[in-house]
Amino acid sequence: MQNSRVPGKNFLFVPGPTNLPDRIVRAMAVASEDHRSPTFPDLVKPLFPGLKKVFGTEKGHAFIFPASGTGGWEAAITNTLSPGDKVLAQRFGQFSHLWIDLCRRQGLEVIVQERPWGTGNDPELIEETLKADKNHEIKAVLATHNETATGVTSDIGAVRKAIDAAKHPAMLFVDGVSSVASLEFKMDEWGVDVIVSGSQKGFMLPAGLLLMAASPKAIEKGKTNKGRRAYFEFQDMIAQNANGYFPYTPSVPLLYGLKESLNILFEEGLDQVYKRHHHLAEGTRAAVAAWGLKTCAKEPKWNSDTVTAIVVPEGFDAAKVIETAYKRYNLALGAGLSEVAGKVFRIGHLGDLNELMLLGAIAGAEMAMLDNGIKIQPGSGVAAAQAVYRANPLLKM
Amino acid sequence: MQNSRVPGKNFLFVPGPTNLPDRIVRAMAVASEDHRSPTFPDLVKPLFPGLKKVFGTEKGHAFIFPASGTGGWEAAITNTLSPGDKVLAQRFGQFSHLWIDLCRRQGLEVIVQERPWGTGNDPELIEETLKADKNHEIKAVLATHNETATGVTSDIGAVRKAIDAAKHPAMLFVDGVSSVASLEFKMDEWGVDVIVSGSQKGFMLPAGLLLMAASPKAIEKGKTNKGRRAYFEFQDMIAQNANGYFPYTPSVPLLYGLKESLNILFEEGLDQVYKRHHHLAEGTRAAVAAWGLKTCAKEPKWNSDTVTAIVVPEGFDAAKVIETAYKRYNLALGAGLSEVAGKVFRIGHLGDLNELMLLGAIAGAEMAMLDNGIKIQPGSGVAAAQAVYRANPLLKM
Amino acid sequence: MQNSRVPGKNFLFVPGPTNLPDRIVRAMAVASEDHRSPTFPDLVKPLFPGLKKVFGTEKGHAFIFPASGTGGWEAAITNTLSPGDKVLAQRFGQFSHLWIDLCRRQGLEVIVQERPWGTGNDPELIEETLKADKNHEIKAVLATHNETATGVTSDIGAVRKAIDAAKHPAMLFVDGVSSVASLEFKMDEWGVDVIVSGSQKGFMLPAGLLLMAASPKAIEKGKTNKGRRAYFEFQDMIAQNANGYFPYTPSVPLLYGLKESLNILFEEGLDQVYKRHHHLAEGTRAAVAAWGLKTCAKEPKWNSDTVTAIVVPEGFDAAKVIETAYKRYNLALGAGLSEVAGKVFRIGHLGDLNELMLLGAIAGAEMAMLDNGIKIQPGSGVAAAQAVYRANPLLKM
Amino acid sequence: MQNSRVPGKNFLFVPGPTNLPDRIVRAMAVASEDHRSPTFPDLVKPLFPGLKKVFGTEKGHAFIFPASGTGGWEAAITNTLSPGDKVLAQRFGQFSHLWIDLCRRQGLEVIVQERPWGTGNDPELIEETLKADKNHEIKAVLATHNETATGVTSDIGAVRKAIDAAKHPAMLFVDGVSSVASLEFKMDEWGVDVIVSGSQKGFMLPAGLLLMAASPKAIEKGKTNKGRRAYFEFQDMIAQNANGYFPYTPSVPLLYGLKESLNILFEEGLDQVYKRHHHLAEGTRAAVAAWGLKTCAKEPKWNSDTVTAIVVPEGFDAAKVIETAYKRYNLALGAGLSEVAGKVFRIGHLGDLNELMLLGAIAGAEMAMLDNGIKIQPGSGVAAAQAVYRANPLLKM
Repeated sequence: MQNSRVPGKNFLFVPGPTNLPDRIVRAMAVASEDHRSPTFPDLVKPLFPGLKKVFGTEKGHAFIFPASGTGGWEAAITNTLSPGDKVLAQRFGQFSHLWIDLCRRQGLEVIVQERPWGTGNDPELIEETLKADKNHEIKAVLATHNETATGVTSDIGAVRKAIDAAKHPAMLFVDGVSSVASLEFKMDEWGVDVIVSGSQKGFMLPAGLLLMAASPKAIEKGKTNKGRRAYFEFQDMIAQNANGYFPYTPSVPLLYGLKESLNILFEEGLDQVYKRHHHLAEGTRAAVAAWGLKTCAKEPKWNSDTVTAIVVPEGFDAAKVIETAYKRYNLALGAGLSEVAGKVFRIGHLGDLNELMLLGAIAGAEMAMLDNGIKIQPGSGVAAAQAVYRANPLLKM
Repeated sequence: MQNSRVPGKNFLFVPGPTNLPDRIVRAMAVASEDHRSPTFPDLVKPLFPGLKKVFGTEKGHAFIFPASGTGGWEAAITNTLSPGDKVLAQRFGQFSHLWIDLCRRQGLEVIVQERPWGTGNDPELIEETLKADKNHEIKAVLATHNETATGVTSDIGAVRKAIDAAKHPAMLFVDGVSSVASLEFKMDEWGVDVIVSGSQKGFMLPAGLLLMAASPKAIEKGKTNKGRRAYFEFQDMIAQNANGYFPYTPSVPLLYGLKESLNILFEEGLDQVYKRHHHLAEGTRAAVAAWGLKTCAKEPKWNSDTVTAIVVPEGFDAAKVIETAYKRYNLALGAGLSEVAGKVFRIGHLGDLNELMLLGAIAGAEMAMLDNGIKIQPGSGVAAAQAVYRANPLLKM
Repeated sequence: MQNSRVPGKNFLFVPGPTNLPDRIVRAMAVASEDHRSPTFPDLVKPLFPGLKKVFGTEKGHAFIFPASGTGGWEAAITNTLSPGDKVLAQRFGQFSHLWIDLCRRQGLEVIVQERPWGTGNDPELIEETLKADKNHEIKAVLATHNETATGVTSDIGAVRKAIDAAKHPAMLFVDGVSSVASLEFKMDEWGVDVIVSGSQKGFMLPAGLLLMAASPKAIEKGKTNKGRRAYFEFQDMIAQNANGYFPYTPSVPLLYGLKESLNILFEEGLDQVYKRHHHLAEGTRAAVAAWGLKTCAKEPKWNSDTVTAIVVPEGFDAAKVIETAYKRYNLALGAGLSEVAGKVFRIGHLGDLNELMLLGAIAGAEMAMLDNGIKIQPGSGVAAAQAVYRANPLLKM
Repeated sequence: MQNSRVPGKNFLFVPGPTNLPDRIVRAMAVASEDHRSPTFPDLVKPLFPGLKKVFGTEKGHAFIFPASGTGGWEAAITNTLSPGDKVLAQRFGQFSHLWIDLCRRQGLEVIVQERPWGTGNDPELIEETLKADKNHEIKAVLATHNETATGVTSDIGAVRKAIDAAKHPAMLFVDGVSSVASLEFKMDEWGVDVIVSGSQKGFMLPAGLLLMAASPKAIEKGKTNKGRRAYFEFQDMIAQNANGYFPYTPSVPLLYGLKESLNILFEEGLDQVYKRHHHLAEGTRAAVAAWGLKTCAKEPKWNSDTVTAIVVPEGFDAAKVIETAYKRYNLALGAGLSEVAGKVFRIGHLGDLNELMLLGAIAGAEMAMLDNGIKIQPGSGVAAAQAVYRANPLLKM
């Protein structure tokens, strides 16, 4: 129960859930209300065009399910595919792994291509694989826009180009849980058929809303496919949403929160939101370099602007750094997962953040590393990030 | 957007979502926090014994999914049954209907027994049916503890006795969405295998948490059954919950809300909670009688203590009463659904309610009926309810 | 600690503090901030024109002190008068009494004219008294726009006319604590020199802000008078407010609350606010008549639209009714004070209220009276109020 | 309107108002309630013993006025002294100056002794002055425990010893607005007759509550003195508080906030609260030294543990540093006031703070100084503070 720790604020730098802006906390502090009332659609209806703008789609259909992003992986495939269908996925982190696992539970046959952790989707390999699939048995390609476990962003537009270059009809499903509303996403332009996201990252809300969108092509598949679903049925949502309602009781505070989230995103401007995430990330990466450490991302082209995974030197345990940061300095860092457990700690830099918050976290990471014997120059990461931030501060005088 | 209407409070008397106590609104106004932190289990772990107490189980396992009650119907059957399995269900209202529909979507074969709307489960018919099922093809009996659409409560203990009397191994699955935490529920004593509830009724929370429990027998089924599930997998929850965590990001504010909900329920005392719901319901039924109207529940034994469906006289449209109440007096009443659409309006009297709130709603229902030409004596329902409430007030001097 | 009582809402029907709209609770849930920052005036500056609109003044100067209305009585006289100065006041209730007492503590000589409790200011007597004051020794007339203790509203415009008719230069100071923002107030038109109000009545805020305005004439007096003041010095406020600041640290949440209060008042429209208060009061008075009881206000012309004081029949103790209402039904009624202690109970009907809230309170008052043996017809008050409300409901379909 | 700025949190490092803990924001989000109800004293009564513990008094009487600390200066003297009385005060900063000014407005004769800004009370000079006051014309000595303008803490115990050494009956009045609940305060042991504080500093609340205490001797003076007061009358408070009520409407949310403030202070432990403030201050002072700058406090013995005033090098404008910090980095620093305007900027380090928050602020101050051309080593202040914090962190693993 973080919320009863004293004194002072917790520094929350896991890559989600992210900090709630006070405006969102306030917006969610609402009385309960009848979700079938004549005035409820005034709340609900404007949410969809707002979401579509964030997803970068005009043609697609946006969905709001009371669930988490994991539910979105399930919704994507059960609404469009049938047990036994083949899908192609590349694995390079814990979250690309988990989606593969979920597909198998749902009866899909997954062609898994292993990629080194610290890299992302390889469009050439996808193109080659699809070209070899003469009978078009592969029904969909699964891509992870931002692999949260390693701090790697993949080029989704390139994946689409690879599919098209292969002249293959496979759909493109994208996990954008830790990218959407923080990194640019262009569903229509990139030919994405299903994009899955959640409320607790770039949308700056608590977890609890699965936010996703599907292309007309993906929705059409639902008429004939044999994937079993009821809770996650697109058609029920489409029918009820058209009038501003839901097939079952929605979480009213989260809807008010989403309304305010969209207000905040559009007030700042999506372009500026993306620029800010890049700016904050650049400072973090400068700090890592000043410490003489490496990121998990193997090349700059893989750098994620929402999370940086930092490799601790050989002989040190990243889990100890994380434990020290949390217990001694009230700083929550992200852990290394699976293959990189104990090797990396992660700084999430997405959502409602500014430079001083991140400088406080960088200072805290320095202390936690120093306490664990990692030889870095105290203040060096802060100084390097300061230089980045001073060169182009978020706020202008 | 009810929450921007002025002046004064909305009178929320739909049978869920229910009024949020201020204590719960405050409890949910928390900062975001790391759901993998060392202190997070301090929040999570005590929730399960609390839930089990409310469900009336010591042997069962309680679950908290980020979903709605509808998801619970799906979780119940996908974790325990296989496509093609037979289940037995009686239909006597919109919610018993919807569960049947969901079962079919998930590939079950549902033996549907129609019962008059306004009545509930018929244990004798269940016993008879199960006795005739010599090969034990029926794997589960689905029962609706409280049919929200008609204001009818069924005797779940009697259903269990019927199954046992038939010496049949069928599991017993119960929809307790609008009963649990308002009406007594004894999972172990009644031999319930899966009980499904949601946060937005007796728990006095926003929607967003699916609260359910499963018996060891039901959980055991998950090892061999072929129902496809991933998001709703019991085993993932059991494994993570054991340490105070979740398989995917939970909604932190709702967990804090649930903690406070359990505090409130136990402070009042579950027995007193049940007595209060009966007390409030008795006043409502006295009002209906004073108006010279009938409830949808056909006999007193079916009376629900959480919701009363009131039949408007022949020739009047209940939908107009509801519209008038909402638009003119800011009173949200429940609509008649499906078979009883236009014939009944419903007063939900569950959750965080006291006598004066309900008297205000009864007064409002009177005005809405009068405005629509229904001949009732103004103030008569209020006076009848007052007599009930004065005889045994909730608070003692 | 009302706020921990369960279950359900408290029915708050004292004549202040009044119910906080959820919008105001949310607006006040703000982080602390620097009250000397360059952006703080964006919050502060628009409050003054808003307040002036509510007070009905263009010429006057509005003030926001961190204090209660009592402080406003003190500010009014210490900023304008000198010890030994004479003021004229009529006493007809507890609050007109208390102001007189405060004046004496501050060294003023108060000419007190007793008026029957249940009546208000007598302009003819004021005119006569001023005419007799040939040397213009009386420096100010104190009037109580709405005497909260008895539910009596006085005609302030008529008091001004009386002063003018006497061709007397006395200033006119008005206590509008329980009238401003609920009853029409026309400072300029009525020639009011100081109007005193507080945040916790018509403004629908917690107590803590003294809201007042002074005419140019009153402010000019501060340059030469000898009343001692520092905390309540008008000139310090005027100087700092001009730039959007305060001479000492203001209560930031209350300022945000005041901003939202003004938004709410202007969204509803001041005229509609006044009509609503009249409408709600008419229903209350109809209830009293149906019960066969009298109001403390001796004639209809004294009726207050913000509070009704109800005289219990001879032989009954109004304090017992109030105690029963609170302890048994969670209904807070106003007590009789001083001369009318034990004889009246009061229903405040001001602030953020609608018809159903008031009907709940009327129903509760009926129960409390019946429990104490007062012979009224159960439901009769509710029915009478319903008739008033149905004839012209606040919300239109 | 800081509260609408995006993105991220404001870094509030003025020496009050201080950051509100989330627990306090939640505690204040309460419904309105009747401040005369039978249950209200359950809230009110425990506040006084809690306050007395913080003030370090068993004999004294604690007061809660709806006002600011400035009102406390007025309450102190109007309740105990008469116009024309002499008081002795030393002036060494803006706040000691303002109290002197207020005393004069209230008709006192103030013997002012100028002390260099950057120093504090000189007990020897006080002793000497009092010894020379053979006729005991000096009725009170005014001392400023913590001069917020210069970051100087005076030794109040030594002032008392000086008075006693002079065998003089003068009362001792102390301004503890920016010290109480952050620095140790021992009213009884130090023989303080009136201590004045406010809610918006160490108590971590919004402004709006004047929190003070008076010795029996000071209260006794109120029976015969001629200071005019009504709003600030001690006797009215004492009479009403005894039963758990107030003479006029209190701010209910602030009282709930105060209850939670006391809970938080006692949970952390007052000794630990004082140690934490010292710890945070030591880091700040280490940063100043690392920058090669001086504090306004002229010697270490004057160092304040709640606020550090930092002197910018000759030729630079501290106001520009403050403006840059606020507008570019969303960091609110305290301005230099009066004599030190433009020469110093202040970092408040009191209230609900921890190390990382302060490190973020120190990093921000570095950036603002660098942007204005002040030659400091980037990250040097952070590194120096880190060393202090790592040596003895607030939280233990």
